[in-house]
Amino acid sequence: MKTTAIFYHAGCPVCIEAESSLTQYLDQGKVELEIIHLGETPARIVDAENAGVKSVPALVLNGTPLHINFGANISDLK
Amino acid sequence: MKTTAIFYHAGCPVCIEAESSLTQYLDQGKVELEIIHLGETPARIVDAENAGVKSVPALVLNGTPLHINFGANISDLK
Repeated sequence: MKTTAIFYHAGCPVCIEAESSLTQYLDQGKVELEIIHLGETPARIVDAENAGVKSVPALVLNGTPLHINFGANISDLK
Repeated sequence: MKTTAIFYHAGCPVCIEAESSLTQYLDQGKVELEIIHLGETPARIVDAENAGVKSVPALVLNGTPLHINFGANISDLK
């Protein structure tokens, strides 16, 4: 069974750089990757918060929130 | 040719969590991964700084510094 990886972003330049840098190097054989733009799908903000995400871009990997550089606080997306 | 990925850390709990979470999911077919403990090999701090690393843990992936969560500032390791 693959591990769930959810990349949360908000379309910001830092987000896009992190996404394009990192996600292509995740092992597609091990990871089921979902990419969520919280600006376009704000209904998912609560999921991100429940996973411990404080800012974007962030990758929630097997339930562990990894904040990657800093684009915006989650609270600023509401 | 594989992409170079260098994971810089300092042995801190945040560093270890990030390393154990992320590095196992990098595609070993695409990425040549090196893990550097800057506390044990301070001679490499300058390399990290030159790559744009401001804090650890950080992954320098194909030359792009990705700061993952926050453990310690590079300046605090000197």
